Amino acid sequence: MTTEFAQVLERLRAEKPLVLSLTNSVVQNITANMLLAVGAAPVMLNDAAESEQLLRTAAGGLLVNVGTLSHPQAEQMRRAVDAAHAAGVPWVLDPVAVGLLSFRTEFCRELLALHPTLIRGNASEIMALAGVAAGGRGTDTTEESAAAVQAAQQLASQCGCAVLVTGAVDYVTDGDRLLALANGDPLMTRVTGVGCAMGALAAACVAVAPDAFTGAAACAAILGLAGERAAARCPHPGSFAAALLDELDSLNPADVVHFVRLDEKSCLR
Amino acid sequence: MTTEFAQVLERLRAEKPLVLSLTNSVVQNITANMLLAVGAAPVMLNDAAESEQLLRTAAGGLLVNVGTLSHPQAEQMRRAVDAAHAAGVPWVLDPVAVGLLSFRTEFCRELLALHPTLIRGNASEIMALAGVAAGGRGTDTTEESAAAVQAAQQLASQCGCAVLVTGAVDYVTDGDRLLALANGDPLMTRVTGVGCAMGALAAACVAVAPDAFTGAAACAAILGLAGERAAARCPHPGSFAAALLDELDSLNPADVVHFVRLDEKSCLR
Amino acid sequence: MTTEFAQVLERLRAEKPLVLSLTNSVVQNITANMLLAVGAAPVMLNDAAESEQLLRTAAGGLLVNVGTLSHPQAEQMRRAVDAAHAAGVPWVLDPVAVGLLSFRTEFCRELLALHPTLIRGNASEIMALAGVAAGGRGTDTTEESAAAVQAAQQLASQCGCAVLVTGAVDYVTDGDRLLALANGDPLMTRVTGVGCAMGALAAACVAVAPDAFTGAAACAAILGLAGERAAARCPHPGSFAAALLDELDSLNPADVVHFVRLDEKSCLR
Repeated sequence: MTTEFAQVLERLRAEKPLVLSLTNSVVQNITANMLLAVGAAPVMLNDAAESEQLLRTAAGGLLVNVGTLSHPQAEQMRRAVDAAHAAGVPWVLDPVAVGLLSFRTEFCRELLALHPTLIRGNASEIMALAGVAAGGRGTDTTEESAAAVQAAQQLASQCGCAVLVTGAVDYVTDGDRLLALANGDPLMTRVTGVGCAMGALAAACVAVAPDAFTGAAACAAILGLAGERAAARCPHPGSFAAALLDELDSLNPADVVHFVRLDEKSCLR
Repeated sequence: MTTEFAQVLERLRAEKPLVLSLTNSVVQNITANMLLAVGAAPVMLNDAAESEQLLRTAAGGLLVNVGTLSHPQAEQMRRAVDAAHAAGVPWVLDPVAVGLLSFRTEFCRELLALHPTLIRGNASEIMALAGVAAGGRGTDTTEESAAAVQAAQQLASQCGCAVLVTGAVDYVTDGDRLLALANGDPLMTRVTGVGCAMGALAAACVAVAPDAFTGAAACAAILGLAGERAAARCPHPGSFAAALLDELDSLNPADVVHFVRLDEKSCLR
Repeated sequence: MTTEFAQVLERLRAEKPLVLSLTNSVVQNITANMLLAVGAAPVMLNDAAESEQLLRTAAGGLLVNVGTLSHPQAEQMRRAVDAAHAAGVPWVLDPVAVGLLSFRTEFCRELLALHPTLIRGNASEIMALAGVAAGGRGTDTTEESAAAVQAAQQLASQCGCAVLVTGAVDYVTDGDRLLALANGDPLMTRVTGVGCAMGALAAACVAVAPDAFTGAAACAAILGLAGERAAARCPHPGSFAAALLDELDSLNPADVVHFVRLDEKSCLR
């Protein structure tokens, strides 16, 4: 499995998939920089017609992140999702703070019916989206990621998509398979946008991976490994943020093969 | 007094107050990262109904920063201030470039009547808001902070709020008490958003402090001390910006007690 | 010529021109930080009336960057360009991804008729704007900068403006003169917004330079030299981004005189 993750990293750098990120206004910069650091190509747009045109012509992946949702942006996202389906472009839903705030919760339920390729969220968000719990406290999660595994599997089965639950351990499921990845560092939660940018990285990985499950798992593996290496050098959040980009840039596919830690027990359903 | 500042820092890290920052589009990222670095929790929203809902349910503080004001954002801010009052959430007004541009000047005067808990600005902004002077040159201040002390005291008395005037020396007043804090470094003005993020940090401090005056003074003390330590290590603005976050993260409450410099003469009215 | 570039750097630091940057939402932060690092003063605004007022009263330069164009922003830009003309403020057009997306392509053609002082783009963008080619892949360029020299000269002559084509070699022309500048590093394309911020830096340089051609060339020289020095110290994109700001801050005018590399053959038409 880790060999497949290394291949995803190699294909990111070779194919440089163009990821249209319709994301919140706080994290556009780090999202673009993380995509560039790993070898992919970022695009952000604020006009619905331009989003549709890019999806028809050039985009390899789409991220929809509702972190600072507004009514005009919701309309842009609806049209982008339709265009992505028409063009066969995979799309990732990041339901930030769903369950906590009503507008985005209703909108994310609407998007769920439009068949995302992958959903990425923390435990609270995944449980809220699955209807199991009421949601966390902003972008924090109030649950351990393991608590959301059942909700993730249920959501994946219902929607026919992959689900990536992020936390100290990341879980990936397509309803059938389940994988737990244990790389990473708590500092990743102390820099704004690392989680949100992970949604864009996941869209890039899915664009070049054999399937959404493998792409999502490769994303968690690559970012987790880069994150723990950056934290080993830079134990405070300001310098850590720069180091994380440096590590994504210098990450060796062979290291992905050898240093990604799968939790074997969790691999079986 | 410095012991109280150290207690504010400890409470920030223990209670992690959620600060809703309705701020300008340039500084959302550094604002969120500065809150995370000091131990608080950031939220940014672009929808008025979501802002109201968060203020009713989860927010510990609110920042209103008019740096890139638009008409839709002004409406979101009005509704947020009303919701903050209804929920008993303290709110900070940062009147960026007031006096220079008419739209925001009129809007800030409107907000003044809604009783902010704290106003944070540079000397030009505070003087313009008090009606003493015409305002500065964008976010620059054209006045020394000491020149605005009288205007700050007048503003605090009129509005029943605390006022924080930032500059080489920071002044805090509630109309009655006056405190001068001398930590900091000129590099803090060479990184965009340090001043604006200070408004969000002030909202976090006020959320956990015994009163707005103490919270504002603790904010100036904590940020000034972190800033001068970062500048001692990193004398240029790019690396300084990362070092500032690192220093906020690693700042020791005992160091706040010992190294914050109060200007005693200014403490008496 | 390099002596003139050094004088532009000195004047930036002495005069601190205020640059109003109407730019895309991804790069506002790095744009402001790059202007501050070189010694200029950034302003971003999201309201059309405030933009007009600033251009009438305080701004020394204007950047119009269409990277995340929306209909409200297009209207703000039209009004800002009119105000800049009325006030005699130089303005720079950065036609991001023109040729690729229809809305911005039509809008940039409209702006072309309003006589920009300077146009900055990569080869694909300049060729698309001149009607020579269809445009690149997002912000990437699919052409070497040399391929766009003829289109740049034609555009400069038609519009009576200067044109800066950026790439591994940067070319500046006013239709008559042509200059090639060879400083820089490929890492500058691996950090989001370096190219976009260059448009704002160009507006600052033009604001203090004897003419738009000299200002644009000085901008390419200053940023290229800072970029190659940053890359020599920091070979990965996260730390490079901070180092670039540090180098802009510490750049010595004497070093601009001695280390800027002009391609002499390209200086003759």
